[in-house]
Amino acid sequence: MKPEPGHDDLTCHSVRGIFPAVSTKWAMPIVELLVERPQRFSDLKRALADVTQKSLTAALRDLERDGVVTRTVTPIIPPRVDYELTQLGHSLVDQALEMARWALAHRRDIEQARERFAARA
Amino acid sequence: MKPEPGHDDLTCHSVRGIFPAVSTKWAMPIVELLVERPQRFSDLKRALADVTQKSLTAALRDLERDGVVTRTVTPIIPPRVDYELTQLGHSLVDQALEMARWALAHRRDIEQARERFAARA
Repeated sequence: MKPEPGHDDLTCHSVRGIFPAVSTKWAMPIVELLVERPQRFSDLKRALADVTQKSLTAALRDLERDGVVTRTVTPIIPPRVDYELTQLGHSLVDQALEMARWALAHRRDIEQARERFAARA
Repeated sequence: MKPEPGHDDLTCHSVRGIFPAVSTKWAMPIVELLVERPQRFSDLKRALADVTQKSLTAALRDLERDGVVTRTVTPIIPPRVDYELTQLGHSLVDQALEMARWALAHRRDIEQARERFAARA
């Protein structure tokens, strides 16, 4: 049986190489939105109100590259593009929800820190 | 007692506003490095071999803004800049390690997905 990875393994460079795709700004919100059902590009764009077309396209491309989502193009006019979580993507959901829970639980601390930072700047 | 946040709360826009700082590309690797001890800017830059000066500065600034790290400048020549996790930052460590564990556990799946993606492109 393989031992559970320890802290040394977790901080090694090889892990860092895997980090980027799932820890860019939009990855977790996208994964959360796809938990319920597949979504069209336009649905995701609307739900993530402050994302740009370019950022969303790049984030989805990275998630597709890493096997977290599939992209299906239906050749109608205009073309319809659907994104769906893969099995690997579904295994990420718990992490995404944990992170959301952390953010929600510490929301006031974060907001207060931002106010102090803005006052200093 | 406040109920645990449900899925609806977790996907609301207000949570998304908090996501960015802790889910940018370098946030989790930085938090991991700071678990052990405070680090100088130059230590972090060396440890995160493929980070640019600009990206690391931006990531640390966002983490400082959100109260996750403190930045201490010692006015010697050349100036010395130390970063340390705050109490809020320490509360993020479990999430960072969970994410690292996920990445390590699914490393082969991700690598294989990347190979397939490269072959298609």
